Amino acid sequence: MPLRYAIVGTGAVGGYYGARLQQGGAEVHFLLHRDYDHVLKSGLAVESIAGDFTLPHVQAHCTTATMPNVDAVVIGLKTTQNALLADLLPPLLGPKTAILTLQNGFGIEAELAAWVGDRPILGGLCIICANKIGPGTIRHLDYGSLLLGQHHPDHQPARISPLLKQIVQDFSAGSIPVEKVEDLRLARWRKLVWNIPFNGLSVVMNATTDEMMADPNIRLLAEQLMEEVLEAARRDGDALSPGQNRHLPQALVAQMLTHTEQMTPYRTSMKIDSDEGRPLEVEAIYGNALRTAQAAGAAVPRIEMLYHLLKAIDRRQG
Amino acid sequence: MPLRYAIVGTGAVGGYYGARLQQGGAEVHFLLHRDYDHVLKSGLAVESIAGDFTLPHVQAHCTTATMPNVDAVVIGLKTTQNALLADLLPPLLGPKTAILTLQNGFGIEAELAAWVGDRPILGGLCIICANKIGPGTIRHLDYGSLLLGQHHPDHQPARISPLLKQIVQDFSAGSIPVEKVEDLRLARWRKLVWNIPFNGLSVVMNATTDEMMADPNIRLLAEQLMEEVLEAARRDGDALSPGQNRHLPQALVAQMLTHTEQMTPYRTSMKIDSDEGRPLEVEAIYGNALRTAQAAGAAVPRIEMLYHLLKAIDRRQG
Repeated sequence: MPLRYAIVGTGAVGGYYGARLQQGGAEVHFLLHRDYDHVLKSGLAVESIAGDFTLPHVQAHCTTATMPNVDAVVIGLKTTQNALLADLLPPLLGPKTAILTLQNGFGIEAELAAWVGDRPILGGLCIICANKIGPGTIRHLDYGSLLLGQHHPDHQPARISPLLKQIVQDFSAGSIPVEKVEDLRLARWRKLVWNIPFNGLSVVMNATTDEMMADPNIRLLAEQLMEEVLEAARRDGDALSPGQNRHLPQALVAQMLTHTEQMTPYRTSMKIDSDEGRPLEVEAIYGNALRTAQAAGAAVPRIEMLYHLLKAIDRRQG
Repeated sequence: MPLRYAIVGTGAVGGYYGARLQQGGAEVHFLLHRDYDHVLKSGLAVESIAGDFTLPHVQAHCTTATMPNVDAVVIGLKTTQNALLADLLPPLLGPKTAILTLQNGFGIEAELAAWVGDRPILGGLCIICANKIGPGTIRHLDYGSLLLGQHHPDHQPARISPLLKQIVQDFSAGSIPVEKVEDLRLARWRKLVWNIPFNGLSVVMNATTDEMMADPNIRLLAEQLMEEVLEAARRDGDALSPGQNRHLPQALVAQMLTHTEQMTPYRTSMKIDSDEGRPLEVEAIYGNALRTAQAAGAAVPRIEMLYHLLKAIDRRQG
């Protein structure tokens, strides 16, 4: 039996992964805001490299108050909206409800822990290029898998629980390739190896991924930022688990540069936020990682500089 | 007897200091391009915090071919135009003609040395906020002094020569406060303590000095960049002159931040170049200093990052 899900925040990511869960047979409730009327009437449409599809009928809600208790709350909001969760979450939470955040950044699960007591918290890292292109309409451009791991309060690797296995099964039934990870902390660092250079530089330089990769100085700077993330992850792993070699492979840098060169030209999520005049996820993607890196003794001057630039850009937009 | 001068490049800086030389009684020839007709007819106007003035008659030229040999060539061109000097200089050069560059940046004198043989080369560091605001019209907003030193081929401090004293006298007669410096290399580093943070960040952040100082993240970043310039200068001084303590005072950072806060809100020269679609002086202000710093073993990751960003911005504009 698949679980019952609530998607809190039906943007590109929440909408895509939620639609796939429903396609796979799960009961899914979608929280919508501006798109509520449209989706209630016309459903959710996904233009996907894996084949377009529409879900003509979805359980759309404009408030979580009309939703039932669910087995798992999937958080698709921007981290900059997390203050809303205090009101949004309570109607959804039974005593055993799990929280699965699909949000970008670092330290997200620990922030959520403060609000949901000892309920299980999972992190889902979305390896996807997807944008919302219109009301109830998502364009899925590239990739589309999920890395799923369970949060451990001490940031240690966690065993793969029956809950996690069930969630993997539900996504798999909806054709989402899911990789189970024990070390969610390390997976978060791994994702930052891409997000830290390309999200921020796309905003500072007003550029898409292909434009950044085509400029030799930006490409080199992206590489240097990636090296700093690797160093931060190494120091953090050593601090949390001395001698256990929780390190990212050095080869990741070259791999990600090559992948970025080869992938469909892409406007990053932070660039889209910037273009739309939305707050930038500076603290979630940069601030939390920067403070963790510095506390662990890593030298990350370029990450810090990018953080300062983005804070100022975000302040000016706000 | 004052010397005879040629001003090669009558922009804000060349125009202002040239006008002051003429005011002080020197014979000054101005090389003009777009403003030639206007200045020939109407002269040069300076709107100055020290009192507005106009020079109704100046010796205006649209080519150096019509100019005489001079005692000193004052270079007011942007460094990005230095390739033009190969054609511009020869008509001006007698066997003892001195070259005085008022250009921004680092390593400028050494580049000029390749073109003018063993003629004396001096560097003039313009401590001034001035913009050209119309044809033949310069607005002088703040400061207005000059630091003058003679280039030594080995970058060692140089004694104050009779030539340098004469030039000081000519500027002084035109009410320019001039400070004679023996250590031109150190003076160049000192100026970079301001130029490296504020020129580059003004372009990246699209901001004036007051806007940069009002943002806590940009202010902190500017301070960190200043510290890197101090470190670069220290390493360079130690490499060139071991044990001679050619260091900048640490207090400079706080002083310059305070001065920048207090001065009239200012659009930097690089920001103006960017707004006007002109090439940016990235190599003169950043590239030369960066390579010198790295060769001397200084850790300057933020300067390097700013260099990469500016190279990409300059490439996109070009």
